[in-house]
Amino acid sequence: MDKVEQTLLVIGAPEHDAAAYHLSGFLAPDPVICLRVVGKVYLAVSSMEYGRAKREARVDEVLSFDELGFVQLARELQSGGRALAATAAGLLEKLGAATSPVAVPPSLGVLYADELRARGLAVTPDAKLFADLRRAKTEEEISYIERTQRAVESACARAVGMLEESSVGEDGTLLYGGEVLTSERLRSEIDVELLRRGYAADGTITASGAQAADPHERGHGPLRTGQSIILDIFPVDKASRYYADMTRTFVKGEPSPELQRMYDAVFKGQEAALSMIRAGVNGRDVHKKVSDILHQAGYKTLVHDQKPGEPLQQGFIHGTGHGVGLEIHEAPRVSIANEELIPGDVVTVEPGLYDPEVGGVRIEDLVVVTEDGCHNLTNFPKEFRL
Amino acid sequence: MDKVEQTLLVIGAPEHDAAAYHLSGFLAPDPVICLRVVGKVYLAVSSMEYGRAKREARVDEVLSFDELGFVQLARELQSGGRALAATAAGLLEKLGAATSPVAVPPSLGVLYADELRARGLAVTPDAKLFADLRRAKTEEEISYIERTQRAVESACARAVGMLEESSVGEDGTLLYGGEVLTSERLRSEIDVELLRRGYAADGTITASGAQAADPHERGHGPLRTGQSIILDIFPVDKASRYYADMTRTFVKGEPSPELQRMYDAVFKGQEAALSMIRAGVNGRDVHKKVSDILHQAGYKTLVHDQKPGEPLQQGFIHGTGHGVGLEIHEAPRVSIANEELIPGDVVTVEPGLYDPEVGGVRIEDLVVVTEDGCHNLTNFPKEFRL
Repeated sequence: MDKVEQTLLVIGAPEHDAAAYHLSGFLAPDPVICLRVVGKVYLAVSSMEYGRAKREARVDEVLSFDELGFVQLARELQSGGRALAATAAGLLEKLGAATSPVAVPPSLGVLYADELRARGLAVTPDAKLFADLRRAKTEEEISYIERTQRAVESACARAVGMLEESSVGEDGTLLYGGEVLTSERLRSEIDVELLRRGYAADGTITASGAQAADPHERGHGPLRTGQSIILDIFPVDKASRYYADMTRTFVKGEPSPELQRMYDAVFKGQEAALSMIRAGVNGRDVHKKVSDILHQAGYKTLVHDQKPGEPLQQGFIHGTGHGVGLEIHEAPRVSIANEELIPGDVVTVEPGLYDPEVGGVRIEDLVVVTEDGCHNLTNFPKEFRL
Repeated sequence: MDKVEQTLLVIGAPEHDAAAYHLSGFLAPDPVICLRVVGKVYLAVSSMEYGRAKREARVDEVLSFDELGFVQLARELQSGGRALAATAAGLLEKLGAATSPVAVPPSLGVLYADELRARGLAVTPDAKLFADLRRAKTEEEISYIERTQRAVESACARAVGMLEESSVGEDGTLLYGGEVLTSERLRSEIDVELLRRGYAADGTITASGAQAADPHERGHGPLRTGQSIILDIFPVDKASRYYADMTRTFVKGEPSPELQRMYDAVFKGQEAALSMIRAGVNGRDVHKKVSDILHQAGYKTLVHDQKPGEPLQQGFIHGTGHGVGLEIHEAPRVSIANEELIPGDVVTVEPGLYDPEVGGVRIEDLVVVTEDGCHNLTNFPKEFRL
């Protein structure tokens, strides 16, 4: 658990390091040093970033690498990375915090950690502490996530509109505006719609048929009638840097009975999960419940069928959900892991079933955990057949 | 220097970890283990990714976490991160490589490093080795970078077209299609043009006036006549994952004499750098030459005017260039650092001058270093006045 006296140190580029951005409120493409000492937050940046950091950072004090002797250290050590860590060590000493334990994110670069330790600092990676710092989202954070979620829904509506307007060619491929409708085209429309609103999507899934049975396949080639089409949309707001995440599965035309059965089972699993989620419930129990439902419906699950040395490749082959915030995957997990939900957790609920012979189905909502249940941030219908 | 016998280990998510993608040729959003042992490359992935990895990875052998005992380790250690490192340690042992030194990227998470070391592995971060692995681009890599560069140029041409077509309102603001033309609008057009072609841009700069004097300010608000407008465009190809990078500076209407003088000095500095670059030349000498030219023209530079404890905020306040490839900033630097250029290095050449009273100017080309000079990958005019 985070105690305000605990010294925290992050060295990272805030655009790629959520811990650095969360602690400093300062976005930059190059590494910065963030420190929290006795509750006060310090940010050290390069001289190039100094002016902007003074204006934009949400910290108690901004310092420049130069005034901390970085240039001299870089010359001595012949390494910008080591010099950065040495600069951080110097700042900790200056603040009288060099003799107490320093918690760092587990992702802190080993080069930084080695240099800090060589200078006598007791550096300990603490995944839980840094993960916990970003749980229990504030109202402001939830409003950012909701705003991103609205953009997700607009983009999904655009894609659904295209699927609805498309016709079915003689060979079963979908036609839109006289051209074959492909996964690539659908993804491009979704991503452009998001970008025009200020959201960046790198990984949107528009996969169908056997491709949809591979949860991380993004989808390519023509879309066809009768096959499930998974749309998984999870952009980041370029301004606030908060993500949202939603998945819907559609079929244009008539699904096979097997595919319909898969959809119904996933839908039922998700309903059960949504009704269970509340503060104090363990994510493991939610995941177990979903797995039981899918198992009873006749599908394999990691919980019931995982055997050492035999990767499970069909059935329910991932967790039920994950936290969403400054990262698309953050704490807590709703999975086999033992993690109790707390008020303000923002998590996905996304059971899925996969079978290369039949296709893939995944339905995903995004919810905020509350004391007595959850508030679903998703406002998009779950219709399967278009 | 990289020797093929040197054992390499990377644990990281290839979509965010260039070392992991470069070694494995496999793109995935979640962490994987990449190993090179006696020249053979191994990739271990989760069961969910196993099928796709078998099809897509450019490695000698694909393994799944499960067959390596990951599930059991995760249960024992109560930490996915530690279990991943323990799995890597087990694989190294299995391959008979656990007793020799293991080089890791400097960015390897300290949590992984601590676990590997606790299991007796001699893990050493080696920034130079991993940076060197990605220098001397292959012809295939250069063709990817060039393809991205063509997209950059199309997007820049689109923006220039808008600036050319815009008119100047009574108060000096630019008007396009009856509306005030803003930095945001210009950036959106650039980014959408890139996205439609399959390129993701997160950080495009369209800054003018005093904003352009802050090299990392992206730009906001109306554009005006007589002010310099910096367009810095550096997207990544979503397919190949290779970046390109170009900057041009424009003025709509008449620049002030001071601004024109800045432009001319930067142009002259860039010309000098481009004519100096060839294999065997030290990036430091190129940077020194550019700095001398700007210094002689009466501007401050980091080389001539940097004083400890006083961040330089005007003049030439950054390096001359940086490598570009799977990351937008990679080796080698063309800067104060002592780094000799080699054939196949792909580097930017981007002197700039900044003064909040006058504006900012930066001109950036992207070149491949050759034995007897450099091949400029940039094919875009350097006109200042529109």
